Amino acid sequence: MSANSSALAAAPASSRLAPPISASLWLNTPAPLALEQLRGRVVVLHAFQMLCPGCVSHGLPQTVEIQRAFDPRTLAVIGLHSVFEHHDVMTPAALRVFVHEYRLTLPIAVDQPSDDHPLPRTMRAYAMHGTPTLVLIDALGRIRAQHFGAVTDLLLGAELGQLLAERNGIGSAELSP
Amino acid sequence: MSANSSALAAAPASSRLAPPISASLWLNTPAPLALEQLRGRVVVLHAFQMLCPGCVSHGLPQTVEIQRAFDPRTLAVIGLHSVFEHHDVMTPAALRVFVHEYRLTLPIAVDQPSDDHPLPRTMRAYAMHGTPTLVLIDALGRIRAQHFGAVTDLLLGAELGQLLAERNGIGSAELSP
Amino acid sequence: MSANSSALAAAPASSRLAPPISASLWLNTPAPLALEQLRGRVVVLHAFQMLCPGCVSHGLPQTVEIQRAFDPRTLAVIGLHSVFEHHDVMTPAALRVFVHEYRLTLPIAVDQPSDDHPLPRTMRAYAMHGTPTLVLIDALGRIRAQHFGAVTDLLLGAELGQLLAERNGIGSAELSP
Amino acid sequence: MSANSSALAAAPASSRLAPPISASLWLNTPAPLALEQLRGRVVVLHAFQMLCPGCVSHGLPQTVEIQRAFDPRTLAVIGLHSVFEHHDVMTPAALRVFVHEYRLTLPIAVDQPSDDHPLPRTMRAYAMHGTPTLVLIDALGRIRAQHFGAVTDLLLGAELGQLLAERNGIGSAELSP
Repeated sequence: MSANSSALAAAPASSRLAPPISASLWLNTPAPLALEQLRGRVVVLHAFQMLCPGCVSHGLPQTVEIQRAFDPRTLAVIGLHSVFEHHDVMTPAALRVFVHEYRLTLPIAVDQPSDDHPLPRTMRAYAMHGTPTLVLIDALGRIRAQHFGAVTDLLLGAELGQLLAERNGIGSAELSP
Repeated sequence: MSANSSALAAAPASSRLAPPISASLWLNTPAPLALEQLRGRVVVLHAFQMLCPGCVSHGLPQTVEIQRAFDPRTLAVIGLHSVFEHHDVMTPAALRVFVHEYRLTLPIAVDQPSDDHPLPRTMRAYAMHGTPTLVLIDALGRIRAQHFGAVTDLLLGAELGQLLAERNGIGSAELSP
Repeated sequence: MSANSSALAAAPASSRLAPPISASLWLNTPAPLALEQLRGRVVVLHAFQMLCPGCVSHGLPQTVEIQRAFDPRTLAVIGLHSVFEHHDVMTPAALRVFVHEYRLTLPIAVDQPSDDHPLPRTMRAYAMHGTPTLVLIDALGRIRAQHFGAVTDLLLGAELGQLLAERNGIGSAELSP
Repeated sequence: MSANSSALAAAPASSRLAPPISASLWLNTPAPLALEQLRGRVVVLHAFQMLCPGCVSHGLPQTVEIQRAFDPRTLAVIGLHSVFEHHDVMTPAALRVFVHEYRLTLPIAVDQPSDDHPLPRTMRAYAMHGTPTLVLIDALGRIRAQHFGAVTDLLLGAELGQLLAERNGIGSAELSP
């Protein structure tokens, strides 16, 4: 996204559906979540690693602010712990401590390890380049943006606002839920 | 706007058109601007005073970031110097120095003083409560939000994204210009 | 000061006494201050201009934090409004509004204009290069450091701590007042 | 330390020597360090846990800034990984990854676990209340300050400046090394 082109492209015919989340474990949710069940909502999927400095200082606080700022009935926030290095110390047990210490309350999927590859399955399915990665999925389940690294609150907010407006439909009686 | 209701309400039938800007002077523009000529664009109107601490530390930097982040063909940013106190020292000459020292490049209107009232004319027409105030005007020229004081980049971005999406129309071939 | 040489040099024989403050006006003090009467205290002299962005965003907040953090019986903080450009709009009347709006409570001298030079007198006497400039004066009235532009809180604190320790004398019964 | 009493008390007769560091492991140093061998230098000992949010966001960055700002010949900085909870996931192996990811280069001692107590040995010897804790040790090896939680750069700098000045002795030819 260039500095002066902040709007998302319209979903082209080639927009692909967001691949399913392959999780070996879920935290902060009574039951596993599936993207299909979130159709009708905008979904923010935030891939992180608990020992990734950029995730801890920037990505996760931003994701928590999204969780706080938007109505969960229209926008769902999901964390994805996508460990692709140092697997032996970023274990589910370590993640539980991290989640407790950082008081995270969003649902978090532990990305399922691949049998034959250091990158876990969901990370591969989305072709992520590392962490933090923020994926924006529209109400029809399509990937509309995927940011690797930092994105400003202002531009991220604009993208979410656009997806929320699309969700509600222009001309409807109510843009807000 | 509550913490969990970040979307703008749909423009109701009662939405009023943004009043015209009454300016005694314009800076950073070869000719005065009129809101009418900006129809088709989202307009961010930022009212400030050069000696208002919240304007200098928060409001103006945020407005400058909006100016930088969005395409001027779809979103116009206008400053409004609405002096309602200490008129003798926040003069146009002082404002020119301020604009120079802070390297501001956005068009700025000097809000026209009222004949019989300390509040200047545009400020009164918009019923502003003070500075900084941020007014969001949609592509049809209607006031859709008016924030007095600080608003987060995330929520402001979401509102701008919604107005930009409305502007482009849902279902059009292109959401972005 | 290099990154790894944060201590002040010992006051050499050639240390010069801080020149007197030439003020045309004082704010926030019942009577003019003279450096001579502050002997025995460390003095922080902060030269600023009310329309200088670096002064407003960084220099003055840091000076206010010094004022808050240290005991005024051992460390005195003085502001110096050294206008060297745009004299017509950074008048004493404008400064009074600025001081009021920013809730500044430190004593502030208005640097006396020179008869024949754009730089005011105190600024010239100290050979300052611009604003913000922070001058550290020891308890014996000698200039020990003069910073033009930004200096980190950590290094500034270390310099103040050194001057305060010198003031109290090593080996005295009490380092703190 | 009250807001207006920023200087350290003179070292009273009762000042106690800093207890030795009990380490089960050292990182970022070719050989274990002992406080005795650092006599003549001011020592900053920073106790942290790798999954303690306040340590990661505030304490460690501040300690790294101290490491960068001061001359290591006069001021030594040591990290102390004092795990007192979640021992199973904040292991030395996990710490190594953390140190690598955060690019920490200061010497770090892994605080030796107690046989019969959740608090590790050095933490107990210093009677620390938690993490982050910052201990300032003077050039004679005495504890002069111990901060639990956040301390501002300005006040911390002042304390370090005082200890550095004491180290050099008032009246010596050179305050800086």
